[in-house]
Amino acid sequence: MTETIRIGIVGFGNLGKGALQALKYSSDMEIVGIFTRRDPKSVKVDGHVPVYHMDDVQDFVDKIDVMLLCGGSATDLPEQGPVLAKLFNTVDSFDTHARIPEYFAKMDEASRSGGKTSIISVGWDPGLFSIMRAFTEAILPEGDTYTFWGKGVSQGHSDAIRRVPGVKAGIQYTIPLDDALEQVRSGSRPVLSTREKHRRECFVVAEDGADKAKIEETIKNMPNYFADYETTVHFISEEELKRDHGEMPHGGFVIRSGETADGSSHVVEFSLKLASNPAFTSSVLIAYARAAYRMNEEGQLGAKTVFDVAPAYIAPKPNEILRKDLL
Amino acid sequence: MTETIRIGIVGFGNLGKGALQALKYSSDMEIVGIFTRRDPKSVKVDGHVPVYHMDDVQDFVDKIDVMLLCGGSATDLPEQGPVLAKLFNTVDSFDTHARIPEYFAKMDEASRSGGKTSIISVGWDPGLFSIMRAFTEAILPEGDTYTFWGKGVSQGHSDAIRRVPGVKAGIQYTIPLDDALEQVRSGSRPVLSTREKHRRECFVVAEDGADKAKIEETIKNMPNYFADYETTVHFISEEELKRDHGEMPHGGFVIRSGETADGSSHVVEFSLKLASNPAFTSSVLIAYARAAYRMNEEGQLGAKTVFDVAPAYIAPKPNEILRKDLL
Repeated sequence: MTETIRIGIVGFGNLGKGALQALKYSSDMEIVGIFTRRDPKSVKVDGHVPVYHMDDVQDFVDKIDVMLLCGGSATDLPEQGPVLAKLFNTVDSFDTHARIPEYFAKMDEASRSGGKTSIISVGWDPGLFSIMRAFTEAILPEGDTYTFWGKGVSQGHSDAIRRVPGVKAGIQYTIPLDDALEQVRSGSRPVLSTREKHRRECFVVAEDGADKAKIEETIKNMPNYFADYETTVHFISEEELKRDHGEMPHGGFVIRSGETADGSSHVVEFSLKLASNPAFTSSVLIAYARAAYRMNEEGQLGAKTVFDVAPAYIAPKPNEILRKDLL
Repeated sequence: MTETIRIGIVGFGNLGKGALQALKYSSDMEIVGIFTRRDPKSVKVDGHVPVYHMDDVQDFVDKIDVMLLCGGSATDLPEQGPVLAKLFNTVDSFDTHARIPEYFAKMDEASRSGGKTSIISVGWDPGLFSIMRAFTEAILPEGDTYTFWGKGVSQGHSDAIRRVPGVKAGIQYTIPLDDALEQVRSGSRPVLSTREKHRRECFVVAEDGADKAKIEETIKNMPNYFADYETTVHFISEEELKRDHGEMPHGGFVIRSGETADGSSHVVEFSLKLASNPAFTSSVLIAYARAAYRMNEEGQLGAKTVFDVAPAYIAPKPNEILRKDLL
């Protein structure tokens, strides 16, 4: 267990920055470098971590054990993923749900052809929440699973607010409805749509002289985004936005409510309360980098998801210590 | 996925009965028989499930894919486990924590020598709670993990009550202290011993003419069991005991509170609220029976724990459906 896992980071946005931070708490890993499509000189990094251009990635095939792909799911990962999975063991947080089967197939082909292991869609949802959904459904086959998100910032909804005429800046929080949570926890197994489980809270900075009533009405009636939800709009100053809404908190709940065949009812609940979504998500990526390395060493090649990874692979402690201390 | 996993059950107490029930919700499994050390004719089973004597178990080596060992950890499993693990893939709920390394070693040797796979210490604690402790520690290395048990019946403490002179019958519930739970959830990472996390509630049926004040005092001052805890004693009638305390509810919480290297704090919480402890525990055993069968088919021999089992192995759905539906 004295081997050090050599890590590379591709993309240096919130997630890449979080991953670099998270490595500080992982004594079995070391950072080799950060890879960017920008001019490496333009990327500011604390400490002495070298930054390279993506074009030079090929030079590192023998110097990096696991590459963390910290780009976005919309365009970065579909393009970079298969190329890098051929050269490196990889971990990514691909989260465009509808395209997972397609992405998995491409990553599987690429990583197998290179003799590598790639773990896709890692994080908390997809990721830890997915594991909880699979675990609880396997154990309580007769039941219902509920996923709640929040309290947390939804990027898509924040963007939608900002497109409203008269809005200078804004942010949107998705918040689980307490009533819905309590109904689910009671074991009554209610039928609830996404809008019946969440409310939306918006903090908006209006432009000088803008018609606030009209902004509020436009937001609340926006189809798909807000119209079907209980939506609150607060107008705040630019200073307040900066001061009170600069963090990226998130979290949520996965609850399975089910019955065993004797008729008794059971509720399993998993929840996250995260002060920083990217800091936590990147910590999950780091743990699964350990798994990608170990599984590749054992010859488990190709694309994997969190469903394929035994808990022991992500733990820094050896298995006999896990059995002794944590079982 | 059309293969049926053939299941045997050894021991027909609460856990064995729960396992037989749980099989009703597992269409990929079928029960072959129940094995007992008693006279098979004395064992009452609903339906048409054959009951055999343990001495005949050898006749079933080709007829059973996974044997569920539903005996106790004190004497049954240490004796039966290694014998049966040589002949069958097994799943058990061995929970004598201090003896897990020793039991693991014996089961590992036995199952390897027979070309079998045995998954030990399955259930919710050890089991699901262990997985949560390992997962959350791997993801948040800088943090503290708290396990709370209850509300649920503690067999050991109930037995202790019943040994008090003047006590006819009784039951004890272990209950997490709300204050302690809230402290932990706040992220303040308090240092809490077991007695600072739980209180104990006793329901006692006194013998006719017994000195209730003395019984209460004896219970509350019992070293190890109650003296260090906030303990409540309620005297009830035999009818009330039967009517209100015949179920075996249990549950608990695993909470990890930690910080990422950027200084932001995160709380991960997993909880169970179970109307019947044996019904749920046996449902976990059934799910891991699927894993024992599949891992053995793949040549993963020897003793395993929940740390070694990837989520996909316990799920009835094939992996591509898990990726599509649950990721």
